[in-house]
Amino acid sequence: MCRWIAYLGQPTHMEDYLYDGERALCGQAMKSHEAKLGVHGDGGGLGWYDRKPFPGLYRNAGPAWGDPNLRELTAQLQGHLFFAHVRASTGAPSIFVNCHPFRCDNWLFMHNGQIGGFDEVRRGLEHGLDDAAYRLRQGSTDSELIFALLRTNGLQHDPVRAIEVTLNKILTQMRQAGVKSAFRATFALADGDNIWAVRWSSDAHAPSLYQRQNCDHLLLASEPIDEHADNWREVPANALVHARRSADGAVNISQSFLFEKVA
Amino acid sequence: MCRWIAYLGQPTHMEDYLYDGERALCGQAMKSHEAKLGVHGDGGGLGWYDRKPFPGLYRNAGPAWGDPNLRELTAQLQGHLFFAHVRASTGAPSIFVNCHPFRCDNWLFMHNGQIGGFDEVRRGLEHGLDDAAYRLRQGSTDSELIFALLRTNGLQHDPVRAIEVTLNKILTQMRQAGVKSAFRATFALADGDNIWAVRWSSDAHAPSLYQRQNCDHLLLASEPIDEHADNWREVPANALVHARRSADGAVNISQSFLFEKVA
Amino acid sequence: MCRWIAYLGQPTHMEDYLYDGERALCGQAMKSHEAKLGVHGDGGGLGWYDRKPFPGLYRNAGPAWGDPNLRELTAQLQGHLFFAHVRASTGAPSIFVNCHPFRCDNWLFMHNGQIGGFDEVRRGLEHGLDDAAYRLRQGSTDSELIFALLRTNGLQHDPVRAIEVTLNKILTQMRQAGVKSAFRATFALADGDNIWAVRWSSDAHAPSLYQRQNCDHLLLASEPIDEHADNWREVPANALVHARRSADGAVNISQSFLFEKVA
Amino acid sequence: MCRWIAYLGQPTHMEDYLYDGERALCGQAMKSHEAKLGVHGDGGGLGWYDRKPFPGLYRNAGPAWGDPNLRELTAQLQGHLFFAHVRASTGAPSIFVNCHPFRCDNWLFMHNGQIGGFDEVRRGLEHGLDDAAYRLRQGSTDSELIFALLRTNGLQHDPVRAIEVTLNKILTQMRQAGVKSAFRATFALADGDNIWAVRWSSDAHAPSLYQRQNCDHLLLASEPIDEHADNWREVPANALVHARRSADGAVNISQSFLFEKVA
Repeated sequence: MCRWIAYLGQPTHMEDYLYDGERALCGQAMKSHEAKLGVHGDGGGLGWYDRKPFPGLYRNAGPAWGDPNLRELTAQLQGHLFFAHVRASTGAPSIFVNCHPFRCDNWLFMHNGQIGGFDEVRRGLEHGLDDAAYRLRQGSTDSELIFALLRTNGLQHDPVRAIEVTLNKILTQMRQAGVKSAFRATFALADGDNIWAVRWSSDAHAPSLYQRQNCDHLLLASEPIDEHADNWREVPANALVHARRSADGAVNISQSFLFEKVA
Repeated sequence: MCRWIAYLGQPTHMEDYLYDGERALCGQAMKSHEAKLGVHGDGGGLGWYDRKPFPGLYRNAGPAWGDPNLRELTAQLQGHLFFAHVRASTGAPSIFVNCHPFRCDNWLFMHNGQIGGFDEVRRGLEHGLDDAAYRLRQGSTDSELIFALLRTNGLQHDPVRAIEVTLNKILTQMRQAGVKSAFRATFALADGDNIWAVRWSSDAHAPSLYQRQNCDHLLLASEPIDEHADNWREVPANALVHARRSADGAVNISQSFLFEKVA
Repeated sequence: MCRWIAYLGQPTHMEDYLYDGERALCGQAMKSHEAKLGVHGDGGGLGWYDRKPFPGLYRNAGPAWGDPNLRELTAQLQGHLFFAHVRASTGAPSIFVNCHPFRCDNWLFMHNGQIGGFDEVRRGLEHGLDDAAYRLRQGSTDSELIFALLRTNGLQHDPVRAIEVTLNKILTQMRQAGVKSAFRATFALADGDNIWAVRWSSDAHAPSLYQRQNCDHLLLASEPIDEHADNWREVPANALVHARRSADGAVNISQSFLFEKVA
Repeated sequence: MCRWIAYLGQPTHMEDYLYDGERALCGQAMKSHEAKLGVHGDGGGLGWYDRKPFPGLYRNAGPAWGDPNLRELTAQLQGHLFFAHVRASTGAPSIFVNCHPFRCDNWLFMHNGQIGGFDEVRRGLEHGLDDAAYRLRQGSTDSELIFALLRTNGLQHDPVRAIEVTLNKILTQMRQAGVKSAFRATFALADGDNIWAVRWSSDAHAPSLYQRQNCDHLLLASEPIDEHADNWREVPANALVHARRSADGAVNISQSFLFEKVA
């Protein structure tokens, strides 16, 4: 289980979002208020879009709270879209390739959740990857595999459809393998101009997701990064939030529910 | 602030002491029950006496709970005397030279506590080191400096006197610098056959220390590593526990109070 | 490309083999005399059999020459059989799971070489793994995949046959994928009592392997670790060296050629 | 001994300077043509001035050639002034606090060289630091101590004088301690608008320094980063190069010799 934040809006320095107070992301890493695992010390990462079309990526396997380079970068870097993530391992080793965000071309992905019975379904899911997605994996997490499945299922062309197809394929594989435990996935995707964020679970316990919106930006977060509860709106379970930055810098936000077209 | 354990007795594998359950040392690293800081993710270390007269040392700056090498070593290594330590930084960077135990010749040292106003007194204390002790420091912690002062003050010849002299010199330096905050020091020293463990503070809040004694060994720990409260005796504040392993392997334990000869 | 040594014989400390002089393994890491890549700074590892039936494992992604823990361990540990390895990456990231030796149950494996066109044949080779071997991989090297194939092909029951079957399967996969570059594999396997070492290539350039034998031990090495050329015998290409330690501690050595029964 | 580059000029991405070819800085790290130690695998660092008055800092103890974060940052970051450095340890451990550049306020410093007999003179030199400089040290290198001495000796007010005073004080200390070996120092300082680079030694073997100047920038380097010898001019021994970026972005360069006013 993990904690993450995603920002879209006016170009900003990132430091405050990670370090300003005990509720900021690196404070959550040491003591989370809403996570199943209280401590997220198994890695931190940052992905950001600044002057180049493809995003920058920084990942380190140590605790984010004590990483001097992460602190430096968030003080210097600016971005109009950035992801930050702190990791609590559910088994895969603490190495940078298992840290989020993951990147492919101009896309970023980060995740909080777990594929139930991952050992039982991993091979079948990897069998379903196309060759390009098969090769892009560097680590051993279920999170990176979800991203690879999203790529296989047409992320670049129709992200929402890719999300629905991927969730369905994972569920099917779990059912075939007789897995009883849940599949939980609260994740974010970005392509440089858009963020798609999903709060979803196969059971009633979708990992938390909140949003804070103001005049010049949208912030999505596993849990609030400040103590002003009024600023925050909980994203409902099974919802997909789509935020788009238009040419004039305005952020447009829409919310839908996964699989609602099906229903 | 830190958590540590010290063992003297029949040669044993170390694994269970660090990994058997949520109360074992690496469980405490993620969630301590008695520490001011709940999380100790800023490094772990092991010192042990086995087949050689000088102890082995393993230190790593990452969280002990996710360190595969530490787990391996505790499964393979045996020792009749070993120290294990998990660190929560109070400011000094997360690098291996700031991890405990510290070693010099055949001696090991590890510590839980803090010199109040360390920035104010550090230079004066370092000025008081003899040249050999001045050179042995590799990191920037108050803990390593306490060990260097112990060396300067005659550790090899009279450990109890060196402890008392060192505590006094630090207190004097703090007083001269006008430091109001406390000096707390719960630490352990070993030379291969003996452990000296101290629970001490300049105020009423000496960091906790417990001992568990049975037929073939003594275990000292910042907090109990199992849930059987009856097994554990709290070491009183300002006490010094001395444990000695005799040639036949028996462990003899005595307790005194610091500065009692003075008083 | 990598450098490695393998020892079988009287229990010994390992330090001299890694640190005694510029030709010792950690000297080779900084400057090799026979390797295609002169520098092997992308990780080091140690596997050893001592008091337990399964081997201990230490792996670290930094340069072996500057790793204080590796130095400590080789000074303290003893083993009657140990492997040590320094890595020069040919692409896979510098993370501990990509460092050798690899372990499964009571077996160790380490490797110097490369599967030509690995990106082209990896998926096909992974498809051929049995489920247990598929799951044991933690990293992304061709070396770890060779070990997983050896497991799949019956390593525990008939190591020599498993080696021949595995080499053949990899060659077949390369042929089917149209790979023109060579498959080179100079590797060692151990089970606690035996070492099997192979020097092999699909072309005329099998990575080097040497052996030094004396009254109480056998040492195999990518290149000599001392300057006494007379001590060393080059293992011929396509040869397999089998060393067995009997109950009385004597080391029996035999050499054969791969696929000779076939021919 | 180390390799470094310093850039002042039009804002630029840094990637090519570190990664474009075998002569670029990370190529030099694996194989230097002019350094006493051929391999510089004990850490890498980057300091840069971009949108903030104080410089950003990235330092990592692993080999620069295999550090994915360093590669990412140099692809994303821009700067009108940046320092990059790869380290070969001459004894101090491989930890990030021993990596260059060092920073204080708006200043950066990096170094190639060695204080002869450092163990003999370290304490005396540290004794001469003012309190602020005494506290800013985090590691144990002679390089960081030189920077601290420069601070003590008035770097912010008169850099050239601070350099001369510092070199003299170190020489005096060495003489008093009876050190016979040389003091060599080829280093660079920056404040955001200026670079001061020094090539100096107490004997005839000042560590190499080159400069490449074109219409929009100046590059200083331990050795050329491309194969076009015509582009490069060797900085003479005992010279100080001062480069200043004016408000219109032009780079003005002047060269003097240390201690020439004295002579």
